Amino acid sequence: MVQSKEKHSKINSSPRVVVIGGGTGSFSVLSGLKKYPLDLTAIISMADNGGSTGVLREEFGILPPGDIRRALVALSEAGESLLSQLFTYRFSQGSLKGHSCGNLLLTALTEMRGGDFGMAVRDMEKILAVKGKVVPVTLMETNLYAELENGEVIAGETSIDIPQHDGHLKITKAYLQPACSINPRAQEAIQKADLIVIGPGDLYTSIIPNLLVKGVPEAIKKNLGTKVYVSNLMTKFGETNGFKGKDFVSEIEKYLGNNILDIVIFNNNYPDKERIREYEKEEAQFVSWESGNFQKSKFKIQDEDLLRKSGFIRHDPVKISRALWRILNS
Amino acid sequence: MVQSKEKHSKINSSPRVVVIGGGTGSFSVLSGLKKYPLDLTAIISMADNGGSTGVLREEFGILPPGDIRRALVALSEAGESLLSQLFTYRFSQGSLKGHSCGNLLLTALTEMRGGDFGMAVRDMEKILAVKGKVVPVTLMETNLYAELENGEVIAGETSIDIPQHDGHLKITKAYLQPACSINPRAQEAIQKADLIVIGPGDLYTSIIPNLLVKGVPEAIKKNLGTKVYVSNLMTKFGETNGFKGKDFVSEIEKYLGNNILDIVIFNNNYPDKERIREYEKEEAQFVSWESGNFQKSKFKIQDEDLLRKSGFIRHDPVKISRALWRILNS
Repeated sequence: MVQSKEKHSKINSSPRVVVIGGGTGSFSVLSGLKKYPLDLTAIISMADNGGSTGVLREEFGILPPGDIRRALVALSEAGESLLSQLFTYRFSQGSLKGHSCGNLLLTALTEMRGGDFGMAVRDMEKILAVKGKVVPVTLMETNLYAELENGEVIAGETSIDIPQHDGHLKITKAYLQPACSINPRAQEAIQKADLIVIGPGDLYTSIIPNLLVKGVPEAIKKNLGTKVYVSNLMTKFGETNGFKGKDFVSEIEKYLGNNILDIVIFNNNYPDKERIREYEKEEAQFVSWESGNFQKSKFKIQDEDLLRKSGFIRHDPVKISRALWRILNS
Repeated sequence: MVQSKEKHSKINSSPRVVVIGGGTGSFSVLSGLKKYPLDLTAIISMADNGGSTGVLREEFGILPPGDIRRALVALSEAGESLLSQLFTYRFSQGSLKGHSCGNLLLTALTEMRGGDFGMAVRDMEKILAVKGKVVPVTLMETNLYAELENGEVIAGETSIDIPQHDGHLKITKAYLQPACSINPRAQEAIQKADLIVIGPGDLYTSIIPNLLVKGVPEAIKKNLGTKVYVSNLMTKFGETNGFKGKDFVSEIEKYLGNNILDIVIFNNNYPDKERIREYEKEEAQFVSWESGNFQKSKFKIQDEDLLRKSGFIRHDPVKISRALWRILNS
């Protein structure tokens, strides 16, 4: 489908890129891509129910603000400005403990807008001078559930993310309840995109909750642009314990459908043992790739160095955005 | 001292006006004056300990943000902008109930600035595009106490403001404990001002708490510009019950010193009985003035229509600012 992208881009208009995710992985991709001349849309999972977000969902019945907040900051032109630092600030004491200012502001704006969370996010885009759009994948309230190989069902995104279960057990099925439908703005952005980037991010708690929304796989299927999956660097205990590259891709395809992805990007640079050792206490492993596993696949495998130079083993915003820009211009 | 104001204003620079107060009265004066070409400074009382402000003082040990927030909004160029609406928004439910967003943002900024409340207020001036400066009268923590004619002592601004005592008893003495000194930025602004406006506002809970700060009366005395007191329109049960115009002025002079005020402005337009009747349940009366009472005073009495056309009996921002502008140019 790579070839057909010209149909969508009008001459001289910025290429339209949609990033689907929610957590730290999306933050890296978005903060890298915002430096390119793109029409950028972040589509954000609405399954989070932990921490400050969980309290605000409970008390105000609003949609989860946490990942929206992170995406807004990633795309803020203001960058290191005071307002964007303030938006990120988290209270450390008293009855406000754990709340981030950004979550509180999104809650206040939602209330000011008579409960319209989508409108509140658009207001915040203006206040923070955001480059691009941040779009909740759905505007309907829902919760994430995961069924394990022993039949146990884990309720709530945060109980999967911070595993309360035996993390060696495989997740056999993830679903949203109540079922919910795609936000029309997300649908429009996906359908018109020249490039759709799925991931990187926690597989069951950040990426798949988007694909579980009715209308999302359908919109991606209808899209005539390039569909890319960016695979993870590390496994996550309780979610993707023991996963190899092929396992990530096959789980994505299980919820998205086969023969939809055009390209899968993986990192081919190994971090030194010191950095990997830091993850041992979390039982997280570096994801190994054998491209031989994909010889019969219809998608192209693109392997390159995507690794941050030091610190946490995460995607480097500059490297990942450069790789995506190259795809868009190939 | 009216004549000496030329000494201070440099040719072609905006006249320097300082407004001393804290509550709704200051809001009216500031929102009117901001439309004039002035170098405007609002000096705000730091005695408030009620509601959201009280909780934040308790939990974070910060200075009271409530009146600072109102002054910032009054002077915000953004005016009716989304950000300034958001700053004013008050949560109505859950654990955030009663907190205004502005108070929370000022608290967060103070924490971000390592506890420097004055710096946080200056940050907020920038974020809200404030015309002028908002300056806490002191940067030291303190509390307001009022001694009644029966010897009883009321502790805390909010217990005086929302009287827990027999409101028919007169306040014989107000004081701050611990004693505190003037914020150097407030001192500088007061000393350099071409016009100092004291009031209007609740006498013991908004105006006098400024005059109780060490260095404030001294700075006003040293000032070579014009010193104006704008008297209140209504009495307040528990504070100024039964007060006439002369009682307001004599209380101000008790804490400021005699022969310092140059002009006292009072309103000469009577609201209709319907509007006054609305205040009966609060035991508040319209303040009556007999200018004959002031024949021996050194200050000039300036009486004119300062009344809002309808609704609450408050100073009209346009009328009061026009009167002050006229004084500045006379």
